[in-house]
Amino acid sequence: MMHTPLNLYGLFKYSQQMYPEQWIVSRGPDGQHRYQYRQFGERVRRLSSALRALGVQPGERIGTIAWNDYRHLEAYFAIPLMGNVLHTINLRLPTDHLRYVIHHAGDRVLLVDEALLPLLRPIGEQLPHVRAVIVLGDHPNLTQSPLQPAYAYEDLIAQADPGIAYDPDMPEDAPLGICYTSATTGNPKGVMYSHRGLYLHTLGIGMVNGIALSDADTVLPVVPMFHVNAWGLPHAAVAFGAKIVLPGPQPTPQDLVDLMKQEAVTLSAGVPTVWLGVAQILEKSPVPLALRMVLCGGSAAPPALIRTYEEGFHIPFTHAYGMTETTPLATVARVKGTLRDRPAEDIANLKSTQGLLTLGLDMRLVRDGQDAPWDGETMGELWLRGPWVADEYYDDARTPMSFEDGWLKTGDIATIDPEGYVRLVDRAKDVVKSGGEWISSVDLENALMAHPAVFEAAVVGVPHPKWDERPLAFVVLKPGKTAAKEELLEHLGQYYPRWWMPDDILFLSEIPKTTVGKFLKRALRDQYQGHLSS
Amino acid sequence: MMHTPLNLYGLFKYSQQMYPEQWIVSRGPDGQHRYQYRQFGERVRRLSSALRALGVQPGERIGTIAWNDYRHLEAYFAIPLMGNVLHTINLRLPTDHLRYVIHHAGDRVLLVDEALLPLLRPIGEQLPHVRAVIVLGDHPNLTQSPLQPAYAYEDLIAQADPGIAYDPDMPEDAPLGICYTSATTGNPKGVMYSHRGLYLHTLGIGMVNGIALSDADTVLPVVPMFHVNAWGLPHAAVAFGAKIVLPGPQPTPQDLVDLMKQEAVTLSAGVPTVWLGVAQILEKSPVPLALRMVLCGGSAAPPALIRTYEEGFHIPFTHAYGMTETTPLATVARVKGTLRDRPAEDIANLKSTQGLLTLGLDMRLVRDGQDAPWDGETMGELWLRGPWVADEYYDDARTPMSFEDGWLKTGDIATIDPEGYVRLVDRAKDVVKSGGEWISSVDLENALMAHPAVFEAAVVGVPHPKWDERPLAFVVLKPGKTAAKEELLEHLGQYYPRWWMPDDILFLSEIPKTTVGKFLKRALRDQYQGHLSS
Repeated sequence: MMHTPLNLYGLFKYSQQMYPEQWIVSRGPDGQHRYQYRQFGERVRRLSSALRALGVQPGERIGTIAWNDYRHLEAYFAIPLMGNVLHTINLRLPTDHLRYVIHHAGDRVLLVDEALLPLLRPIGEQLPHVRAVIVLGDHPNLTQSPLQPAYAYEDLIAQADPGIAYDPDMPEDAPLGICYTSATTGNPKGVMYSHRGLYLHTLGIGMVNGIALSDADTVLPVVPMFHVNAWGLPHAAVAFGAKIVLPGPQPTPQDLVDLMKQEAVTLSAGVPTVWLGVAQILEKSPVPLALRMVLCGGSAAPPALIRTYEEGFHIPFTHAYGMTETTPLATVARVKGTLRDRPAEDIANLKSTQGLLTLGLDMRLVRDGQDAPWDGETMGELWLRGPWVADEYYDDARTPMSFEDGWLKTGDIATIDPEGYVRLVDRAKDVVKSGGEWISSVDLENALMAHPAVFEAAVVGVPHPKWDERPLAFVVLKPGKTAAKEELLEHLGQYYPRWWMPDDILFLSEIPKTTVGKFLKRALRDQYQGHLSS
Repeated sequence: MMHTPLNLYGLFKYSQQMYPEQWIVSRGPDGQHRYQYRQFGERVRRLSSALRALGVQPGERIGTIAWNDYRHLEAYFAIPLMGNVLHTINLRLPTDHLRYVIHHAGDRVLLVDEALLPLLRPIGEQLPHVRAVIVLGDHPNLTQSPLQPAYAYEDLIAQADPGIAYDPDMPEDAPLGICYTSATTGNPKGVMYSHRGLYLHTLGIGMVNGIALSDADTVLPVVPMFHVNAWGLPHAAVAFGAKIVLPGPQPTPQDLVDLMKQEAVTLSAGVPTVWLGVAQILEKSPVPLALRMVLCGGSAAPPALIRTYEEGFHIPFTHAYGMTETTPLATVARVKGTLRDRPAEDIANLKSTQGLLTLGLDMRLVRDGQDAPWDGETMGELWLRGPWVADEYYDDARTPMSFEDGWLKTGDIATIDPEGYVRLVDRAKDVVKSGGEWISSVDLENALMAHPAVFEAAVVGVPHPKWDERPLAFVVLKPGKTAAKEELLEHLGQYYPRWWMPDDILFLSEIPKTTVGKFLKRALRDQYQGHLSS
C-alpha cells in the first residue's frame, strides 16, 4: 500500500475540490460576513504567503488571540498547511500565564483581534521573540498595538500571493498546533498536536459511531476556537464540507438562538453554561430549530439540563468528554444501536454518562496499578491511549506525572459499565481512599447540595489512623436556613452506604475557591489534615 | 502524540470490548448458525492458536477457499491478528490460475469449505508448499481432501487455547491480506493489503460521507468474501459493532430476500446481477424490507435498475466503484448534502455515476500526461493515490505498467464533473483516440445495442492514416431482424456528434468473447487493423 501521509493538506485539498461552493457564515462586530469555501481557500493561501513574506521559518509557532470567526478559521489552516504550528491562546488566561504561554511556545508572530489588543498591553515588552503582530479586523488602528511592528490582516492578505504551493507530502508526525492546559499548580502545560493525530481525530468526528458530522450538517461551534481547537470541529467541518457558522466575539444566548434559527444549524457544541443560557431563551420564546445534536462538554451537564433539551425541546443532547491532551474527543454519550430499545429511563441514564470511547482509542480503568472491572461500580483512574492522545507536555518537566507505560493518566476517576459507558465520578486528587475502598467526593457534594438548606458543600479526604483516609464535609448553609449535622447525614444515608458517610460535617461561612471559582480543596485538606487523627 | 499503530488488533479489541452481545447470523447447508461477538472472538483466538500449533510461522500466507460464512469471518480476523497474511482465493478461477495464485502466494495452509474440496483435485499434487488443509464444515469427511494432512476445523478449534496473546503493537505497515486480480493477459496479479490500509479503509466505510456503517446496521455482504475482502464490509461491520448476516454457499435471490426480511437487514452489497435477481423476486411478491442502502459495485448498474429500487421499491440504491488495487472502496455515488435539493432528474443522474472520491484518497484525470479539466465532458484516465491504494503487484514484473509517479493508473477512462462525480466511460485500452479527441467505445456500443434490431455490438479503434485511430463497429443482429449500416449510423447520430460516428459498421454472426463472456476486443482489433488504412 502507498505511504501517503495523513496530513491536513489531504483534508484541505479534498475540501477545496469537493465543496468549493459551501458557505461559511461569521458573526462580527459589524454584522455578518458570508463567503464560500473557494474564497476561504484562496485567503488561506494568501495568509500563508503573507506569513512567509514576513520571514516566518518552517516549524515556527504562530499565536492567535481571537474569537470564533472566519479570519481565525483561515489561520487554523494557513499556519499548519505551510508547515508551521498554530498556537491558539486562551484569551481568558491571567496575565502572567498569557505571557508564559506566548514565551514558552516561542511564538514568532501573533494574530490578534483588534478588540483584544489590550490584553497584550501589560506584557508587550516582555515578548522580545515576537517579531510581528497581525491585527484582525476590518480597519484596525495599528498604533493601538502594544507590540510593533503591527500589520493589518486584510492589507497583508490583499497583497499576498494566492499561488503558494503546499507540500502534499508533509510528514504525518509533523507538529500542527499547540494548546496549553491549566495545571493544578504552576504554569499551563503545552500539548503539541500532530497532523496524524488531528487527521484521525477528524475521521472519528465523521463516523456515525461518533459525531456523524457530514456535508449535510450546518455546524455552529460555540466552544471557543482557543479551547482545544474548538473540539476539532472547525477542521472537521471543512474536511467534510459542512456549512460553518461562527458566532464571533462574546455571543449572548440570544445571538446563538438567532444564528441557529437563521442558518438552520444542525449541530452545535459548547459547555453546559452555554446550553443553560440557550434553554432559558427557548423556554421563554420557543423557536423551531433544525438541531440534530447539541454537543456538550467541558464539564458534566446536570441531568435536568439533558432532560430539558431531550424531552422539553426534542433536541438530542449529547455529552462528550475529553481534554487538551486528547485533541480532545475521547468519549461521546451516544446510544449504541444495540441499546435503542431500552426503556427511556435507561437511555436517559446512558446519556448522563461521559459515554463510549471513540473508535481509535484504547482505555483502561486503573486502581492500585491493576485493571479494575468494568462493572459500572468499581472506581478507577481513567487511562487513555491512541493516536490523538499526547505522550508528553511540550518541553515540560511535569511530563512523568501524567504519562506511564505509554498511557495518559487522565487524573479522572471513573466507573465503566459492561457496555463500555464511562462515568466520571471524581478527580484523582479528590477521591477519598478509605480502607481500600474509594468514595467519590463529588457524589457526596452533589447529594449535600441537593438538601434544601445547603448552599455549598465540599468533601475532602483527610488522614485517619485506621482507614488511611475518611471523608470530611464542609457545608455553607443558605441565608436564614439551618440544618444539624445529624439531619444532613440522614439525608446522605438515603443515597449512599454507611461507610461513605463523612466522619464529620463542619459548617463554614464560605468554601475557599480558586481564581476561576472552583473549590480550593487543597486548602481544606491542609487546614484540616489533623481533624480525624488528633 | 502517541505512536500507536493503526492495526486490526485495535479494531478487534474495541469490538470485543464494546459489542460482546452483538449477533452474527450465518446461512449454512444445514440451516442457520447464530452466535454473538463474544463467541466469535473466542473462536478467532482459538483458530490463531490452532494455526500456531500447526507450525505456521509469522508472516506466512494462509489461503481460504470458502463462501461467506462465520468460519470464513473467523479466518478474516484470526490470520492477520496472529501476524499472518489472509489470502482469500477466488473459487471461480480457472484451474491453472487457482494453482498459480496458491503457488505464487506461497500458501502454507489452506482453509477450504468441505463442498469446495473438489477444486483442489486437479492441482493437489502441484502444491508441495501447502503443509496442511483445514476443512470447514460440521462433520467433514477428511479423506475427501486431495491434499493431506487434512484437519477438521471444528476439531482444531475445540482443542485450541483461547488464551493466545495478540501483539497490540503490530506495525501498521505489516501485511494483512492478499487478493489476486485478473490480468488482461497472463496470470492473476496479487495485491498485498496492510494493516494501516485496511484500518483507514474501514474508517472510510464508517463515515457519513461514505457508507455510514454503524452499530445501528445489520449488514448482509452478498459480494463474496473471496472478492477484495467482500469490499471491506466484514472487517468494518465487526469494527463498528453491526449485526452481520452471512449468506453462505450460492444463495439464490429468494434466499437473499428471505434473509433480508427475517433479519431486518439495513445494508447489503453485491454486483448488479444480484440486484437484478432480487428485483425480480420483489416485483413478483413485494415484502417490507428495512434496507437503508443497497450498495452496488463490480460493474456499472443499468440506470433502469437504479430507478427500480429507488422509485419502485423506495430502497436507496448506491453505486460504488473500486478495484482490487484499492482495497477496494474508491468512490461512492452518494448525494452530497449540498445537492439534496436538486431536481429528481439531476439526482438520478448523480446516482448513475460511479460517485464521489472517498475522503482519504486523491485522484487525477490524466490525458496525454496532463491533468484534464473536471468539466463532466473531458475524458481522461483515472489515477488514484492514498493509504489504501496499492503501490505494486506482489512479486510481479508487471508493476511498472500500472504505477507511475506514486499513482495507480486504474486503466479506466472517466469524466469528472465540477462537483467531483466520477463517471466511467471506457477502459483505457478500448477508448478510441481520434485526432487528439477521445471516443468512448462503451457509449457507442450501448447506443447501438439500444437499436431494436441489434443483439450485440462491439466498437474498437483501428489505425487510420489521418486521424491515428477511428472507431469501427461490429454488430450482431437479432434473429430475423435487419438493419442497414446507414440506418444504424442515423440512430447513433441522434446521440453523438458526427466525429464519433464509426467509419464502418461490419455485421458478424457473433462477437468473439473471453472465457467469462466479455467481448474479446483485442481479437477484433488484430483482425481488422488494416481495415481503414489499406
